[in-house]
Amino acid sequence: MNAPNPRQSTTNTASVIEQISSQEIFDSHLGGKLSVECTIPLASKRDMSIAYTPGVAEVSRAINAQPELAASHTWASRLVAVVSDGTAVLGLGDIGAAASLPVMEGKSALFRQFGGLNSIPLVLETTDVDEIVETLVRLRPSFGAVNLEDVSAPRCFELERRLIEALDCPVMHDDQHGTAVVVLAALMNALTLTERDIADTRVVVSGAGAAGIAVTEILLGAGAGDVILVDSQGIISREREGLTGVKRDYAERTNREARIGGVEDALRGADVFVGVSSARVPAEHLAGMNERAIVFALSNPTPEVSPEDAARYAEVIATGRSDFPNQINNVLAFPGIFRGALDAGARRITPAMKIAAATAIAELVSPEELAATFVVPSPLDPRVAQQVALAVSRAVEED
Amino acid sequence: MNAPNPRQSTTNTASVIEQISSQEIFDSHLGGKLSVECTIPLASKRDMSIAYTPGVAEVSRAINAQPELAASHTWASRLVAVVSDGTAVLGLGDIGAAASLPVMEGKSALFRQFGGLNSIPLVLETTDVDEIVETLVRLRPSFGAVNLEDVSAPRCFELERRLIEALDCPVMHDDQHGTAVVVLAALMNALTLTERDIADTRVVVSGAGAAGIAVTEILLGAGAGDVILVDSQGIISREREGLTGVKRDYAERTNREARIGGVEDALRGADVFVGVSSARVPAEHLAGMNERAIVFALSNPTPEVSPEDAARYAEVIATGRSDFPNQINNVLAFPGIFRGALDAGARRITPAMKIAAATAIAELVSPEELAATFVVPSPLDPRVAQQVALAVSRAVEED
Repeated sequence: MNAPNPRQSTTNTASVIEQISSQEIFDSHLGGKLSVECTIPLASKRDMSIAYTPGVAEVSRAINAQPELAASHTWASRLVAVVSDGTAVLGLGDIGAAASLPVMEGKSALFRQFGGLNSIPLVLETTDVDEIVETLVRLRPSFGAVNLEDVSAPRCFELERRLIEALDCPVMHDDQHGTAVVVLAALMNALTLTERDIADTRVVVSGAGAAGIAVTEILLGAGAGDVILVDSQGIISREREGLTGVKRDYAERTNREARIGGVEDALRGADVFVGVSSARVPAEHLAGMNERAIVFALSNPTPEVSPEDAARYAEVIATGRSDFPNQINNVLAFPGIFRGALDAGARRITPAMKIAAATAIAELVSPEELAATFVVPSPLDPRVAQQVALAVSRAVEED
Repeated sequence: MNAPNPRQSTTNTASVIEQISSQEIFDSHLGGKLSVECTIPLASKRDMSIAYTPGVAEVSRAINAQPELAASHTWASRLVAVVSDGTAVLGLGDIGAAASLPVMEGKSALFRQFGGLNSIPLVLETTDVDEIVETLVRLRPSFGAVNLEDVSAPRCFELERRLIEALDCPVMHDDQHGTAVVVLAALMNALTLTERDIADTRVVVSGAGAAGIAVTEILLGAGAGDVILVDSQGIISREREGLTGVKRDYAERTNREARIGGVEDALRGADVFVGVSSARVPAEHLAGMNERAIVFALSNPTPEVSPEDAARYAEVIATGRSDFPNQINNVLAFPGIFRGALDAGARRITPAMKIAAATAIAELVSPEELAATFVVPSPLDPRVAQQVALAVSRAVEED
């Protein structure tokens, strides 16, 4: 096997990672990043008679007689399958299942590190929604939850909906809802800081892909005054021709003033900008926003508008990057959401659970700490997943 | 969740495990027996930038450009999927996928302990051969090898053949070939001990299921003088009516004298008996065997003939049980076979690799140690998987 040439593979992305060479990244990935270990001893014949034959037959027989014992006596009920078809991997696009695997291994590693959960990547060499659903239905007893990852829009909406219908376990497309939960958490604190009520808040969401749609949905669910969705063709409005599927639905539920035009038209009189596409926004377009504006420019590695430029117009600025304040990082949400759902034995991840997760994340920033440069906790804060899991579990019980 | 009642689930099987209570077995299985761990640190932002975004994007991009890098830079190429549909689980029969999971977790644990390999159980809620093949083809980039387990005969023959055709990676049905390899290993040493040449050896195999067919195949491949297969209807011969599929094939290749009748008729003048069905054999039936007979009574937990009774007629006796000498335990074979195949980058597990594995296992019993009560090494002997892996790798290179 030839080692990759670090020089060839150094790109813009690498500039974000200060002092980390491509060589170090490739070396760290040699052999993959996950291992499967046995949690009980296997050192003696006696050990093997418990973990394997003949002892294990008693457990299998018991599950056959009482199927609910599978939840307590196998690993599957606490196992999150990280599922991808490799069609929308990070900023790389449709690179296929095999090339997506390092990302999915990383995701599984984060489930262990932050959620204390087992997780395995399952990458699929099919992009057909029917086939993906069918495959996971057949494998159903092998896992306890599904984290969909890096599936392209608009297929991701149908795929998630179909999986939720077909599987009696938590299913969540993290690129949608993980992002949405952290955006809502950061927004809750930014609204407190800028003395706003969410019911009076006008939000512009740039990007109507997986993240943009989910951010819009959670903001509407949380009671936002209005949301205007903007895609590469401009503002989404009831008047716009040629809208299909999900965009048509949201045209009915957003943009109360029926605005038309581009992002600059949308931003006039807006309180909040959330960028979740790679479309650049000239900083001057922010000039029409209300006083004490809030700007979340989440495109990675290059934010829609640079934080330095946005600072001329906005009071609170967040990005997706770890080298600026207020990083909107999904790892604040997904480990705790799945942990809480599995702890509570939930069969669905509901809107109420997502809002509970966002509230828990927001509350980890104390009133004393709250500042324009600190509206979300650090992704490394070990309290986050615990508190999110607790809040999600409670939301399940209240349902 | 109710705890299972240990009293209810105590059965014959439990009597094999001396001093192990059902309570201890169930307690050991709480939460399952496997965990997924991250092999690189995730304690800092820097760590996360290597294992996950943005660093991981470089590895994904490299694999997209050079697909062969998936083998070196993901975990999949060293990962064995333990696949079952739960149709023939241990001695329990068709108990279904969920109830088979504790067995598959145990198998994955043995791959870690003895083969140093990652392994995940994938249990399938379908028994349709087409659907199982299709499912694994779709998941192909997620694993590096398939250990089929506890799939009922005769479906297991077609399923294994179809998977070998469809997947460009090692596939082995362990109930067939793991058993066959260890039987051949034990037989090699038993033949040395009883001063026989395999070419002059007449073997009776009782049971024409997964293990019986594979034992017959490996014995023919190793040059056995003759094999007579016996199933629940008696001796398999060219004359027998109503034979289908695999049994018809073996009727052509076994039983040179065209014997008919039952196991007693088959055993007359035989050197070796291999029992791999649950059919009891009266000890007196062994009386017709040749001097210095070899009896492998492998049914679990109750051997076809008790070792004590067989001792009146046979010089070397093996069972599947850990509480008698000469335990024929698949764990002697499968970890090293898969390890060797993956080490060598093999795309198939060939007959030559299986015979190499059997020879390596046999050779771990030194001439000084070789005795009627010691024809196979202990399943706990850590040299076994290493030596088997080496021998299998060499066989790949010689191919």
